[in-house]
Amino acid sequence: MAKESSLQKSDIDYLVQIVGIEKLSRGESVRYSHSHDESFHKPCLPDIVIWPQNTDEVSRIVAYAFERRISVTPWGAGSSLEGNPIPVQGGIVLDLQEMNRILAVRPEDFQADVEAGVVYKDLNRILEAEGLFFPPDPGAAATVGGMIGNNASGIRSVKYGATRDYVMRLTAVLSDGQVIRTGSRSRKCSSGYDICRLLTGSEGTLGIVTEATLKLVGLPFTFMAVRATFPTVGDATRTVFEIMRSGLTPGAMEFLDADIVGVLNRDRGLHLEEYPTLLMEFSGYSERGLEDEMQFVTDICRGNGCLLLDRGIGPVERKRLWEIRHLTHESIRRAHPGLLSLSMDVAVPLSRYSDMVALCKEIVTGLTAYVFGHAGDGNIHVVVMDNPDDEIRWAGVEAAHSRIVQQALDFEGTCTGEHGIGIGKKGFMVREHGESLETMKKIKALLDPRGILNPGKMFP
Amino acid sequence: MAKESSLQKSDIDYLVQIVGIEKLSRGESVRYSHSHDESFHKPCLPDIVIWPQNTDEVSRIVAYAFERRISVTPWGAGSSLEGNPIPVQGGIVLDLQEMNRILAVRPEDFQADVEAGVVYKDLNRILEAEGLFFPPDPGAAATVGGMIGNNASGIRSVKYGATRDYVMRLTAVLSDGQVIRTGSRSRKCSSGYDICRLLTGSEGTLGIVTEATLKLVGLPFTFMAVRATFPTVGDATRTVFEIMRSGLTPGAMEFLDADIVGVLNRDRGLHLEEYPTLLMEFSGYSERGLEDEMQFVTDICRGNGCLLLDRGIGPVERKRLWEIRHLTHESIRRAHPGLLSLSMDVAVPLSRYSDMVALCKEIVTGLTAYVFGHAGDGNIHVVVMDNPDDEIRWAGVEAAHSRIVQQALDFEGTCTGEHGIGIGKKGFMVREHGESLETMKKIKALLDPRGILNPGKMFP
Repeated sequence: MAKESSLQKSDIDYLVQIVGIEKLSRGESVRYSHSHDESFHKPCLPDIVIWPQNTDEVSRIVAYAFERRISVTPWGAGSSLEGNPIPVQGGIVLDLQEMNRILAVRPEDFQADVEAGVVYKDLNRILEAEGLFFPPDPGAAATVGGMIGNNASGIRSVKYGATRDYVMRLTAVLSDGQVIRTGSRSRKCSSGYDICRLLTGSEGTLGIVTEATLKLVGLPFTFMAVRATFPTVGDATRTVFEIMRSGLTPGAMEFLDADIVGVLNRDRGLHLEEYPTLLMEFSGYSERGLEDEMQFVTDICRGNGCLLLDRGIGPVERKRLWEIRHLTHESIRRAHPGLLSLSMDVAVPLSRYSDMVALCKEIVTGLTAYVFGHAGDGNIHVVVMDNPDDEIRWAGVEAAHSRIVQQALDFEGTCTGEHGIGIGKKGFMVREHGESLETMKKIKALLDPRGILNPGKMFP
Repeated sequence: MAKESSLQKSDIDYLVQIVGIEKLSRGESVRYSHSHDESFHKPCLPDIVIWPQNTDEVSRIVAYAFERRISVTPWGAGSSLEGNPIPVQGGIVLDLQEMNRILAVRPEDFQADVEAGVVYKDLNRILEAEGLFFPPDPGAAATVGGMIGNNASGIRSVKYGATRDYVMRLTAVLSDGQVIRTGSRSRKCSSGYDICRLLTGSEGTLGIVTEATLKLVGLPFTFMAVRATFPTVGDATRTVFEIMRSGLTPGAMEFLDADIVGVLNRDRGLHLEEYPTLLMEFSGYSERGLEDEMQFVTDICRGNGCLLLDRGIGPVERKRLWEIRHLTHESIRRAHPGLLSLSMDVAVPLSRYSDMVALCKEIVTGLTAYVFGHAGDGNIHVVVMDNPDDEIRWAGVEAAHSRIVQQALDFEGTCTGEHGIGIGKKGFMVREHGESLETMKKIKALLDPRGILNPGKMFP
């Protein structure tokens, strides 16, 4: 896999002038650690890794790369699941993790200015003192820049939406090195084209986001947490649908199949009932109000044959609930040492959720697979553990993946709810987007005419 | 103002072949009714008005216009306030009001498929039976297509966001007549560039939206409505800030200055106290919960010297509250027969709202002006009534407008919260968007290379 650097000495000398000798590396271990994300996708070594310290440095590096036609792939925490930041054409990896300053918290405006390398969990720890938070919550130690790249979301998006809904302003470096600042500090804005949302979810293929103004939300006053188990998967997913349809707005609505509960019990020493399970959170101002909601939720769960209801009100109960869900993916991996995971990420309209979960379970029969997901959003993750070096078995895993995505598209869903396209979903873009893929390609060619920004991603 | 048609007989013959003789008109009165919106901006007659019946007809008309380099301006209800649909270069006005079919309501998926000419209020009347609604609420009898064009919002956006947040899929005709379908029925999606949100708010300058899949929201179970009056504007706007900062999520939070309350009393036979006034709505599942919230809101209002609190729980109380706010703009117009209105629409970060309202009141001293707005979003409308034919007076009105916008931009706000750029705000685009305006211009040139789509708008 190792590959000699195609950069010339003059290139390195120029880049050293920009960032200093300490802030770039061609060392094998550094290049290796920037050759893969958390997916099974094949690693590719970059020629060089650079840690810029500010937007101006990013601009100068990209301007030089444009001139010299060198690939530039932005890097956050490397926690992607579709190969999104793998530098498939080598070149420069721009690791933005040292641009991790929280530039300003403006609690009175419900917004924060951050650099792209800020880890969202660190931001939320600081915001807690202000009674505020940044809702998208993908789980891993993702950076804000990476979350913007993939339009990350996670367990809270059923109520709060995805990263795209929280990007008010961006500073981005375009492919020729030009710096643009786009968006507004105003919560409401009908001025001009929405370049912020065009860049969000573009996986670094249209520009490199270096700073963002994020919209924040007030932390709810109190919480209600519910864990409910059901005799069958269908009983659980029907409950999801009925709760969403009732008009309640859960702050989270997660589905776990019985096998995952088993893994969690063994990995973390829990003693949970190993049945299809829903984890739900509701929030509000008034405890009395939440008690009323809890009664309503209880009635819906019981109507669907619920076996067990573990409920509580208040922040402690909430914490207890989410400790169960926390790091599910990691527990699954630990249960299968030596195997790699293919983490599927389809999403379908809510009315199809029950059918889609049932079909997923059927399609992965015979594989080591776990089904869970952000049920309130119609998002399903199927994690399959296997060995990519066993070509026959892995071909079976990939065939199952393809069938599941095609099924989601048959249901008018999407090939990716929150992980992005990266390498792994490129093959589904034609089917999902039809003629509008041409418009996307034109925009890519317009904003990155030399194709240097995160090449080999998104487009088939 | 009248202008001879520059279309040739062969053009008309071709267009008649597409839509039939009944669905186009070159009559003076029809052209006049499509020459102006509800703003003071100077009317311009189109050469022809066409009422297409489906996307295919729109596609064929636009393809022909592209070939012949004829301007095409899409038309909804004509209720814009910045001259957005005025056909300043003549050509074709595509009136989409006859494409007003609700194609499907999918309550189980919280979505509806509609044609662009559907009036959102008609849609909401039908959705009510399903316990659902489409939240953006600009007030006038706007069409969904017009709302998408301007990214309209209105009184509910403080809780629910703007039109952009509710567009899941779009069918659009590009400038060469190509039809694209973009977006997903999935609530969550990280697949490809966000063309839906790029088109939303583009005022028909990048493509003509003919159909949309809209995200819907469950109607709240019950409501709390509050009208509060205060001794000074500052007391009222400070209350807005404290309620938003407290973490409550009002469903609406409107500010009216004392003069507007006076106009409403006289126009509609009301007997409201003529003081700076807040109208607020909260909603939820539980009446007990809302009672608790009401106590909290009451405490905040009283802490800011509130004079009167008119409160109630339930849908009847809610209706009573909003009847006051309904058609405010129309009441103001009726109070000044013979004069035209310039309706300003700036928005600022919340912490600047009090200062901005105070500065607006100062800047319009000596003019016949009313200040109100969607306070919870930092959105301020100043309506000035005057006579555009009195050049000296009108120059004073426009100077005040410019000062107010510049002040909003000094506060890092926007020149338009919800009315769009159209003609009226073009002059502020450079100041507001800086270098990113070049990116917008490039996208415009990419998607509309011949400049036929709603020409003369958005760009200075």
